[in-house]
Amino acid sequence: MSRTWLVYLAGPEVFLPDALEIGRRKQALCAEHGFVGLYPLDSTIAADPNGERVDRLIYRANVAMIRSADAGIVNLTPFRGPSADAGTVFELGLMIGLGKPCFGYTNDADDLLARTRRLGDARRDPAGIWRDADGMEIEDFGNADNLMIDAGLAEQGAALVRPRGAPASRFRDLEGFARCLAQAGASLAGSVRHL
Amino acid sequence: MSRTWLVYLAGPEVFLPDALEIGRRKQALCAEHGFVGLYPLDSTIAADPNGERVDRLIYRANVAMIRSADAGIVNLTPFRGPSADAGTVFELGLMIGLGKPCFGYTNDADDLLARTRRLGDARRDPAGIWRDADGMEIEDFGNADNLMIDAGLAEQGAALVRPRGAPASRFRDLEGFARCLAQAGASLAGSVRHL
Repeated sequence: MSRTWLVYLAGPEVFLPDALEIGRRKQALCAEHGFVGLYPLDSTIAADPNGERVDRLIYRANVAMIRSADAGIVNLTPFRGPSADAGTVFELGLMIGLGKPCFGYTNDADDLLARTRRLGDARRDPAGIWRDADGMEIEDFGNADNLMIDAGLAEQGAALVRPRGAPASRFRDLEGFARCLAQAGASLAGSVRHL
Repeated sequence: MSRTWLVYLAGPEVFLPDALEIGRRKQALCAEHGFVGLYPLDSTIAADPNGERVDRLIYRANVAMIRSADAGIVNLTPFRGPSADAGTVFELGLMIGLGKPCFGYTNDADDLLARTRRLGDARRDPAGIWRDADGMEIEDFGNADNLMIDAGLAEQGAALVRPRGAPASRFRDLEGFARCLAQAGASLAGSVRHL
């Protein structure tokens, strides 16, 4: 008998004005693959009558959803800089720590060095190492982001998806997401869940 | 009989030209508190004679150190934008997922809204929500970074350390690190390690 996999949907689209609509689109794509998409609740938790901090409630709700999930799909599109959204990256680390298979995509196909060079006066030091304006080394492995992110995904067997071509809408395009769903389908179909 | 705690030292200082010297300073401060500081190996792993990708080797070495650690101290100083270094944030999530107590500091005392407003033309939308130049909501909880980071630390019982005053050197100042060591000392002293 088949079962339904729960997939946590991490990404900065929770900050869009139409965050709930994007969430519904992602969940509809999940359903086409036989998954249930769990979308973070940042947009839907408001004031608490007991006066508990809303950010803590959101954290607990998101962590509870992550714990209940069989896998995660993370949107690693650059956010306010050359790297992915910090909340999404935290959730990726958390899911890998919890042993959940994760799949990731970015809507910026450039590598980290190219992204960082776009932002400011990066240059090579006398040893040939690329450094940003603060003198901090820029990793040059051809990865999309910090090596912990790219390698964390690759070591699980599914490389970070980097669709070519600038998407029409960086935070809304779902081509990479659909490819992650295919990765997840192939991976989870071969696994057995221990209840 | 007392034992020695192993503390993993995450932070963007691995990208400084003097990364190894900063690591030694952090390890010396750890020793004063009776800890052994485990410093990431990004700077010390070079080419592999068997042709394995260096980034993968660094990832595996860092994850192995994290797994061996009793706790983590993370430097969440903003890096190439308003948020912390993506590699450090990944490691924080990983450690929390693995059940390791974590302590964090930032050398930028401002909150996320103020940091993000410094970078570009953030403005309030008609509903009063702050949005960045891409129209993405800026969290306004008074946190230093994305709520998953601040709340992740706070839920463990130790709030993110945010020393007042601009430090002389943003990526080298160790006042916040020393305060995290004190947090860790108080926390680990009351715990029992199950070997």
